[in-house]
Amino acid sequence: MLPSSYDTQVCSIARALELVGERWTLLIIRDVFLGVRRFEDLQRDLGIARNVLAARLDKLTADGILERRRYSEHPPRDEFLLTEQGLDLWPTVVALMQWGDRHRPNPDGPPTVLEHKGCGGAVSVHRICERCGAE
Amino acid sequence: MLPSSYDTQVCSIARALELVGERWTLLIIRDVFLGVRRFEDLQRDLGIARNVLAARLDKLTADGILERRRYSEHPPRDEFLLTEQGLDLWPTVVALMQWGDRHRPNPDGPPTVLEHKGCGGAVSVHRICERCGAE
Repeated sequence: MLPSSYDTQVCSIARALELVGERWTLLIIRDVFLGVRRFEDLQRDLGIARNVLAARLDKLTADGILERRRYSEHPPRDEFLLTEQGLDLWPTVVALMQWGDRHRPNPDGPPTVLEHKGCGGAVSVHRICERCGAE
Repeated sequence: MLPSSYDTQVCSIARALELVGERWTLLIIRDVFLGVRRFEDLQRDLGIARNVLAARLDKLTADGILERRRYSEHPPRDEFLLTEQGLDLWPTVVALMQWGDRHRPNPDGPPTVLEHKGCGGAVSVHRICERCGAE
């Protein structure tokens, strides 16, 4: 727990970190961005304890970052989608990914490479297509 | 502590979060970006326990994000500067700030407004000047 003085910080970053400052949280959001949306798939991909994953998903849903949608009634199964608030975390996810690629590179090359869906160009640090210039 | 499986994630984001996934860490980095560089000033601004701040600063220095520089010999006093690795966290800080401004706004307006140093224009979500177009 952070001390109570943390809450008194008049800072947009502090308020954003209240939601996503925990490491698993951003990795869950990353997975949902990449199309891993179901509890079992998230659990397998992240190697996270089931109770921890369930708690994080509940909190992200309560905070309006994810939305729960039932995709099977028998048995009851839910998947998780990003809300508009969640989608707006994309610049944060990309910024962390680009920092990791540059300063803590994977020996076998970057595990994920972004490309612009329209033309296949590389994505700059300003999230602009380096080939066609689209934002 | 995250379970050991966390370390096996082949993911640039996971490796970036190893360094900056703790909330105080990013707030310390934010402060140094804004010119708050000395232990006493950081401690006062963040309202953080002194031993916690000292531990975070030691780790950020060991990890190559901050650099310690002595600015007074009597009494011995250090300040902290961002290394190149640390400066490259700027997009992450800006992305979090813009998310917080949009989705968790401060009732009295944003506490900090970015402007392009060259012309004073507003900074877009792509970190490009909305007035003159500079990156």
